[in-house]
Amino acid sequence: MAQKPSIPKGTRDFGPEEMIRRNYIFDTIKGVFRLYGFQPLETPAMENLSTLLGKYGDEGDKLLFKILNSGDFLSGVSDEQLHGNPNALSTRLCEKGLRYDLTVPLARYVVQHQGEISFPFKRYQIQPVWRADRPQKGRYREFYQCDVDVIGSRSLLCEVDLVEIVAKVFQRLGIRVTLKVNNRKILYGIAETIGHADKMIDITVAIDKLEKIGLEAVNGELREKGIDERAIEALQPILSLEGANGAKLARLREILADSPVGLAGVTETETILSYVETLGTELEIELDLSLARGLNYYTGAIFEVKARDFAIGSICGGGRYDDLTGIFGMPNTSGVGISFGADRIYDVMTGLDLFPDDTKGTTRALMLNFGGEEERVSLRLAKNLREAGIACEVYPESAKMKKQMEYANRRAVPWVVIVGSDELASGRATVKNMATGEQQAVAFDELINRIE
Amino acid sequence: MAQKPSIPKGTRDFGPEEMIRRNYIFDTIKGVFRLYGFQPLETPAMENLSTLLGKYGDEGDKLLFKILNSGDFLSGVSDEQLHGNPNALSTRLCEKGLRYDLTVPLARYVVQHQGEISFPFKRYQIQPVWRADRPQKGRYREFYQCDVDVIGSRSLLCEVDLVEIVAKVFQRLGIRVTLKVNNRKILYGIAETIGHADKMIDITVAIDKLEKIGLEAVNGELREKGIDERAIEALQPILSLEGANGAKLARLREILADSPVGLAGVTETETILSYVETLGTELEIELDLSLARGLNYYTGAIFEVKARDFAIGSICGGGRYDDLTGIFGMPNTSGVGISFGADRIYDVMTGLDLFPDDTKGTTRALMLNFGGEEERVSLRLAKNLREAGIACEVYPESAKMKKQMEYANRRAVPWVVIVGSDELASGRATVKNMATGEQQAVAFDELINRIE
Repeated sequence: MAQKPSIPKGTRDFGPEEMIRRNYIFDTIKGVFRLYGFQPLETPAMENLSTLLGKYGDEGDKLLFKILNSGDFLSGVSDEQLHGNPNALSTRLCEKGLRYDLTVPLARYVVQHQGEISFPFKRYQIQPVWRADRPQKGRYREFYQCDVDVIGSRSLLCEVDLVEIVAKVFQRLGIRVTLKVNNRKILYGIAETIGHADKMIDITVAIDKLEKIGLEAVNGELREKGIDERAIEALQPILSLEGANGAKLARLREILADSPVGLAGVTETETILSYVETLGTELEIELDLSLARGLNYYTGAIFEVKARDFAIGSICGGGRYDDLTGIFGMPNTSGVGISFGADRIYDVMTGLDLFPDDTKGTTRALMLNFGGEEERVSLRLAKNLREAGIACEVYPESAKMKKQMEYANRRAVPWVVIVGSDELASGRATVKNMATGEQQAVAFDELINRIE
Repeated sequence: MAQKPSIPKGTRDFGPEEMIRRNYIFDTIKGVFRLYGFQPLETPAMENLSTLLGKYGDEGDKLLFKILNSGDFLSGVSDEQLHGNPNALSTRLCEKGLRYDLTVPLARYVVQHQGEISFPFKRYQIQPVWRADRPQKGRYREFYQCDVDVIGSRSLLCEVDLVEIVAKVFQRLGIRVTLKVNNRKILYGIAETIGHADKMIDITVAIDKLEKIGLEAVNGELREKGIDERAIEALQPILSLEGANGAKLARLREILADSPVGLAGVTETETILSYVETLGTELEIELDLSLARGLNYYTGAIFEVKARDFAIGSICGGGRYDDLTGIFGMPNTSGVGISFGADRIYDVMTGLDLFPDDTKGTTRALMLNFGGEEERVSLRLAKNLREAGIACEVYPESAKMKKQMEYANRRAVPWVVIVGSDELASGRATVKNMATGEQQAVAFDELINRIE
């Protein structure tokens, strides 16, 4: 076979260096999740199509990867079906599909296992998802999601936990961020107050573009959507609200005085921010009324995280939803969750050079191999290092020194240990610091204290 | 929707308790892999069908999960193809499939990235694979493989590393094991010596059944396969070889005196065992001439690990292969690897009750919630515990104490911390050890020293 093999469009191999850095991100996030009492969950890559279809809109249905039934997949399919709509036909040929996100599988899991789960169910899930999107820069057909949710509690302490998790994750990763918050009830209150509760989605979609297209263009779009001039005028002071979160909320309380839902949204936001302030959480938080997110889904607080020193879309986001499991016949189960965007976080950390040095490789020392008795001693020294928890390798062949050193370099091993005939005679290994080039003689017994 | 949702046959959800225990196994294994200088690799779940087809035999091809092409998947498919063989048709409808193992993706990766890789390439890979097998007890359609391989070195030190990894992994997991070793060259030498080099596969398939069906039945099967009586007679002393590995090898050296390949196998085995002995590796190793494994694949040492205190198939296995990447046009690249069976290891550990206590849950303390100022203090104390690295939760609502304690019990939280009005007044929390039922008053500042 002459042709070099390849992988499907929009998918990626993660080689050792990328993996070590990705694991650094995932391990940091997981560590914080655990600190707050969240527990891991994994669900199968394949779900029944009946679980997935209709949950992501028509567009989402088209983006599902479907798995061809095994065996005689055409059995029972009529000629008419065969020559009909391919989408309809695909659901005859396929019973299963690859998961599209981690939210629908979570809802499915909660409903299926409701008898065994201790609510509030605090779970995190870090697994790949698949979407048959057109691949482009930064958009993949297979990518990891990294979700953390509390299911079965309406308490705002859950939101507070998530805000603290955001603060701690990005503090540990070294990324300076701003957490933007809003509340779907405030958005409803605004629509209601200006007399267009029915057009809440149109209004928020337009407001969402404020930062991108400016106030004039937003007003133009509102007019196009049939919002009357009186309403647009009433909206202006809200859109131009400035200042500290407390001041904004106080002003909103006046503006939304006649909307009980809107006022509830203000109170929720005040409560969350008050808890976070009491706890002294170090995080820049900004109430951003233009923050909308997938509106058909969220019902309370919504969150989005932006990196302050790197231009990229949001690197984390989520919110409160009051009826996640209703689609599977278990109504009135409220939940709140956020999702960390691992790929973008990786790009930010690469762009700002934030990965610690030891994410270049996991091997701390390479013992060169000169064969014979030297080799046996190197193997024994390597064993000692490993007993002390130090990851090391013995080069497997007594190849030319240049080749072995090249290997150490390419693998970014920080220490090289040489046991040649001189060292064998003196009982002292030559230890080379690969960063500085410095060499020193170290007694065999002392090695475990010298290799960091 | 009235019907409870479900997942596809042969797939599994892993809830928190199972996940924590599975992670304990994977983390232990990964830790040992890293100690020996192996680095992580991940490849996409979907591979091109051209990569997968023809690599696992006809049976394997049928067990591949194929992904239906997006959009108009019937475009360009003729009526004749549509009504022809479903297997042939499926490769018209599908370009991609789910990976069947981690070995073919490794070979594909090595060939595709040969310019970037530092050889010897020491990689580990822990990811799910998918097979459209008929689901049955202990056999799943989605399961994790856990592979470690060295590619690009013929040195037997690689085999030695793997033997040491086996010893250390199972020692850390607390499972007493026997490592069975054999060598494909010895098997060839035996076939050659008894005058049937051409029937090596028939002979080893028969020998492989020795333990299960006994010597007489094995001889019967050999006769059926056309092995002559003289050859069967010559085989008898080999089949009944007993005693220590050294004695067996010495005897084999005599028996295989006229087979250079067989002698090479004996020497390889002696070398590996001699290194392992020099290093003082604590592991029961048994040369087992009936050990065969997938013969069309391996070319040198072969390994299999059996648990000594629990009846189950092999829990780890592998060997040396001299031409993994030849299928993708990169010949003469030797490698050696082993694969740990996570599901079986999980069953052994559950059966022998080997999981440490702290794999029941990751949360160390639950702070009960009595609302008001008590809640605020609990939140602050939780924050202190977390700063000290102790995973804890505050129950999110001031629910009835019974309900909160039930939650602590079901979540297997070892410590419950109570800050009610009395505790608030005294500045001392009530700390309950959930295992013993003991309660004591602990000053707020002292909590981080009391919760383990």
